[in-house]
Amino acid sequence: MGGDHGPHVTVPAALEFQARLPDVDMVLVGLRDALEAELAAHGAAAGPRLRVHHASEVVAMDEPPMQALRYKKDSSMRVTVNLVKSGEAHACVSAGNTGALMAISRFVLRTLAGIDRPAIASVLPNMRRTNTYVLDLGANVDCTPENLLQFGIMGAMLVSAVEHKERPSVGLLNIGVEDIKGNETVKRAADLLRSSGLNFAGNVEGDDIYKGGVDVVVCDGFVGNVALKASEGVLQMVASALREEFSRTPFTRLAALVALPVTRAFRQRMDHRRYNGASLLGLRGIVIKSHGSADVFAFGQALERAVEEVRNSVPQRIAARMAQLQVPAA
Amino acid sequence: MGGDHGPHVTVPAALEFQARLPDVDMVLVGLRDALEAELAAHGAAAGPRLRVHHASEVVAMDEPPMQALRYKKDSSMRVTVNLVKSGEAHACVSAGNTGALMAISRFVLRTLAGIDRPAIASVLPNMRRTNTYVLDLGANVDCTPENLLQFGIMGAMLVSAVEHKERPSVGLLNIGVEDIKGNETVKRAADLLRSSGLNFAGNVEGDDIYKGGVDVVVCDGFVGNVALKASEGVLQMVASALREEFSRTPFTRLAALVALPVTRAFRQRMDHRRYNGASLLGLRGIVIKSHGSADVFAFGQALERAVEEVRNSVPQRIAARMAQLQVPAA
Repeated sequence: MGGDHGPHVTVPAALEFQARLPDVDMVLVGLRDALEAELAAHGAAAGPRLRVHHASEVVAMDEPPMQALRYKKDSSMRVTVNLVKSGEAHACVSAGNTGALMAISRFVLRTLAGIDRPAIASVLPNMRRTNTYVLDLGANVDCTPENLLQFGIMGAMLVSAVEHKERPSVGLLNIGVEDIKGNETVKRAADLLRSSGLNFAGNVEGDDIYKGGVDVVVCDGFVGNVALKASEGVLQMVASALREEFSRTPFTRLAALVALPVTRAFRQRMDHRRYNGASLLGLRGIVIKSHGSADVFAFGQALERAVEEVRNSVPQRIAARMAQLQVPAA
Repeated sequence: MGGDHGPHVTVPAALEFQARLPDVDMVLVGLRDALEAELAAHGAAAGPRLRVHHASEVVAMDEPPMQALRYKKDSSMRVTVNLVKSGEAHACVSAGNTGALMAISRFVLRTLAGIDRPAIASVLPNMRRTNTYVLDLGANVDCTPENLLQFGIMGAMLVSAVEHKERPSVGLLNIGVEDIKGNETVKRAADLLRSSGLNFAGNVEGDDIYKGGVDVVVCDGFVGNVALKASEGVLQMVASALREEFSRTPFTRLAALVALPVTRAFRQRMDHRRYNGASLLGLRGIVIKSHGSADVFAFGQALERAVEEVRNSVPQRIAARMAQLQVPAA
């Protein structure tokens, strides 16, 4: 029900997804009438492989998370997370209110042993055309060194699971690569990461996110969120500048026509929709957050991410790694 | 003497600058032989309008700032800042070690009354093709709400001085625009900014830096530095992706040729060299930090920034505004 477009996006995305991956069963959770109407609008109907599960309430996009948690016990979001808890679903994918999804998931599913706080992890593109996983992207605005260590472990386990890398490299986001740089939290986090047994690559800087030198970039949620949004802002500015320059004169408009296959390939390569689907890591279950503005293609990417995490047992891997941890997790 | 290229960049940049602005007197500070050789290499010589001031030491780019401050009393950096202190120079421009420049400037010049810590402010481009001033960009990794308030005042005074705006708008970098978002420091800083008499626009997010909705974006140095570097990383990735797509096949290489005037205009527009020259604000004197990798063009931009700040009395304006401040500056 969530996101800017609700079932108008999620339902066709589910149909399209199931057409591609027919071995995945799906449950659409929300207002039955709205979901069935949307299915009918696409010439489809619910069935054993694509069930509709009624939930009478919807969490609003701007609703305070604690309010959603306390008072909307029959929201589509809560009911979906409950399905994960009970084992009826292997994963939950939502385009709804991020704070509410985090609060509900944490309350219902609980965190894994040794994990103090879940984190939001997302994939970003890089110059080597591999994936850089960054966490936390906004769930935790004040992190301890222990939190950052746990993010490193969760990120490494996510990458080892879905990218099939044995020892993913983990960098700690800082304002210089030297050990003496940064605030006290980051310096102590570096010490913890160094003795964690992870493949710790030391400090990295903001531009390293896009260089592809490390698989995982660890940071607190405030910094991660700002870095992500600033990056989006730059991309928007670049796109708008390119558009403007290409539409300046008749000649540049002709050049735009000639360059169309190139700019199209470029746009596709930079298409943020391909990276849609952030993981709420550290929970006893799989929860994927789609961007609220996701379209059918983007929401499909989030669904795929959920399936990847299920097939590769991401929470189990994190739990196993936490159990081995020598450093006490505060 | 500083930066990646030393006098090979700074000396020709000074010559080129003085050719453009002949009413600006310049003092080249550093190893006399190196400076005079570089002048001679450009068919120039020192004179009353372009003096060489000998300094026997050079601060290394990777030297610990405190070491430079304590033991290199005759470094080109220290001597230049001394010239500002004594009034022999109106401003100092350096491409050297940022930490050392900040430590020396703070020690020699002192901060203005009410300013606890200087900040590094820089101009960034935005979609409205105006300038966004962001501070702090890395001088202060742990800021109090009072520091952030002071950054807001300093940024606003800088913009009012050099952009001739009467009431520049100030945004506080946060991870959401709602008042409840962010950590405690940011929330308290918002309260201080709201009652400061500044034109406070509330919280802004990372992408707002590039939207141009506010003139000044205030943040702590850790967050600002990461946002800036992440932005640089995205731009590099975009540039490299565009290059790759344009050189993929004979057809795309032809398209590149046709689109050359467009991509050239685009590159020029996105050229970070135009924004070179960060202000060390809050000092009793004008100090401008050029990027270490600056070329002659970029270093010239930093020189221009220094002249702008001198002509518009930036430190005096900050001092005057601080004197009016009702809120006690802790």
